[in-house]
Amino acid sequence: MTESNYRVKTIEWQGDEVVMIDQRVLPLKEEYIHHRTWQEVGDSIRTMVIRGAPAIGVATAMGMALAAQQSGADDYEGLKRDLEEAAAGLFETRPTAYNLGWALDEQRKIYGEPGDPDDIRARMRERSQQILEEDIAMCEAIGEHAAPLFPRGARILTHCNAGALATGGYGTALGVIRSVFKRDPAIHVYADETRPFLQGARLTAWELQQEGIPCSLITDNMSGYFFRKGEIDAVVVGSDRIAANGDVANKIGTYTVSVLAKAHDVPFYVAAPTSTVDLDIPDGGGIPIEERDPAEVTHFGGSQCAPDAIGVCNPAFDVTPHENVTAIITEVGVHREPYSESLAEAKKGKD
Amino acid sequence: MTESNYRVKTIEWQGDEVVMIDQRVLPLKEEYIHHRTWQEVGDSIRTMVIRGAPAIGVATAMGMALAAQQSGADDYEGLKRDLEEAAAGLFETRPTAYNLGWALDEQRKIYGEPGDPDDIRARMRERSQQILEEDIAMCEAIGEHAAPLFPRGARILTHCNAGALATGGYGTALGVIRSVFKRDPAIHVYADETRPFLQGARLTAWELQQEGIPCSLITDNMSGYFFRKGEIDAVVVGSDRIAANGDVANKIGTYTVSVLAKAHDVPFYVAAPTSTVDLDIPDGGGIPIEERDPAEVTHFGGSQCAPDAIGVCNPAFDVTPHENVTAIITEVGVHREPYSESLAEAKKGKD
Repeated sequence: MTESNYRVKTIEWQGDEVVMIDQRVLPLKEEYIHHRTWQEVGDSIRTMVIRGAPAIGVATAMGMALAAQQSGADDYEGLKRDLEEAAAGLFETRPTAYNLGWALDEQRKIYGEPGDPDDIRARMRERSQQILEEDIAMCEAIGEHAAPLFPRGARILTHCNAGALATGGYGTALGVIRSVFKRDPAIHVYADETRPFLQGARLTAWELQQEGIPCSLITDNMSGYFFRKGEIDAVVVGSDRIAANGDVANKIGTYTVSVLAKAHDVPFYVAAPTSTVDLDIPDGGGIPIEERDPAEVTHFGGSQCAPDAIGVCNPAFDVTPHENVTAIITEVGVHREPYSESLAEAKKGKD
Repeated sequence: MTESNYRVKTIEWQGDEVVMIDQRVLPLKEEYIHHRTWQEVGDSIRTMVIRGAPAIGVATAMGMALAAQQSGADDYEGLKRDLEEAAAGLFETRPTAYNLGWALDEQRKIYGEPGDPDDIRARMRERSQQILEEDIAMCEAIGEHAAPLFPRGARILTHCNAGALATGGYGTALGVIRSVFKRDPAIHVYADETRPFLQGARLTAWELQQEGIPCSLITDNMSGYFFRKGEIDAVVVGSDRIAANGDVANKIGTYTVSVLAKAHDVPFYVAAPTSTVDLDIPDGGGIPIEERDPAEVTHFGGSQCAPDAIGVCNPAFDVTPHENVTAIITEVGVHREPYSESLAEAKKGKD
């Protein structure tokens, strides 16, 4: 379909291998990692070679297709057993990303029904490619729906990386920015660096630069300064999971941005495919928040920046309550309060 | 007086040299830099060997005393000319710190009146030592006034480093925490790492650890998460300059913390000596905000973390409006709205 139009190749099949750009070494190095097993894919998800909920969904689907390839079973039950083991292993790599479980379910729809093992292998491989292509098409649709929401010459703040690198391509929040930029080259983007993993400094800044979109990189604690100066017209972020009531889990720091946006009467938009919406979770209180390695906070690039043995907290995500969210944009359209109704409507016929 | 009671020696006279701990290499190395000239002191202020408004004030006073020592002039007019040149050079090192100009004024009171050059030299040296000792005594008084404001077992957020290292010793915001801890060892401190210069991770975390005060280091974008969980009972920060109406200039990111505190109904305290209060500036709009080197944002602990040639903003300070400030604590006492009256009262007889 469309993914070949984009320069950034986040993840793709090359022969029997799944190839990912190593997001840990961007923007200084452009390196690709080849995966032949689901375990290798699981390691890459865990260590954040690939990150971003939609991209994790694609990686998971491809990881399951690799597991099917790996399995020596020539009977259905043996194949299913191997796939259930892979699914369990992949499931625990990143607990907050809803698309991970969603991708496992999509593959389970295929291998859950008895059938010829080789046929199942082929269909799982095909489905994983389809999920990649659907993801790109969804991001483009999100961008089209969202673009009219932004004023001319908008100065837009984004947090973390919800870009081509966080998805199959194009991006959710950054896809929206790409779509706005196509109509209006006078926009300006403020990109939060997004400690501790620096997805903004390393990935968003790099993607914006690749596209020639004017931007200023700032540290996370600077956005308040620009809100107060009236230099931010809108915020757009992605999401890792959205609860039925519109509460939004996203990268740590998103909640703070939403409080600032509200205090300065600036619209706060969330861009995410409907696959990110989890109707089984009534509100954000039910979304598990991953706590990551303290070394992410005490170190960077191998250099230590805090005293030995200092106490550290490192929650990877936070929850923005729906009342701070001006609109959620999916591939279906623009959804507003009451989200319990608008999101349920958007999900209809999607599962 | 009292400075010898504290382990951390931020700045002191050793013979004819001004010795500072190099705050750029803490907490991994404890190195001291010896200064024989005011130009060396100016470089150390500019490059942030020493930082924090009160400490900059002490360094400036000592730098002027060095300038007096350096001057070969044996007549009053020659000495004064040399000192005016030093004052102009020191004045431009850090534009936001009010204590810098205040310390220059204090020394000018001595050399501004015709007198015997050697007598002026001796008095300037003596005055610089006195400013150091007064600063420590002021910090202790601030701590005493502020401590009763905190509930038992308080969980306290601080931003940047307003500690012993930012002052002659003891600290303003961190001095308050020291005083609270003396009464109540059950407190817990959240320390923002404070990008881009990481004063929180490098200096505040180190000082808290030296004192055995329980703390958690967090990235700047995490405090919202803990506010929302109800895990922060109070905020205390220092200040680089306070306007007559109570608007507070402090390290970039302070304003965001104040918005979060207000949104969660948590008290936001500012701890600073009256020398930080600038009655000549009616409100925060008149406080100059220093823009620093983009490399502070694009690099982290010496390693590059953003693409080459990316656009960057790096304002070093922001202004917290007085309506977000619950109280300002000086060595005189606890001041509340209307600040235009309470601060004017506090300054009486201080200038």
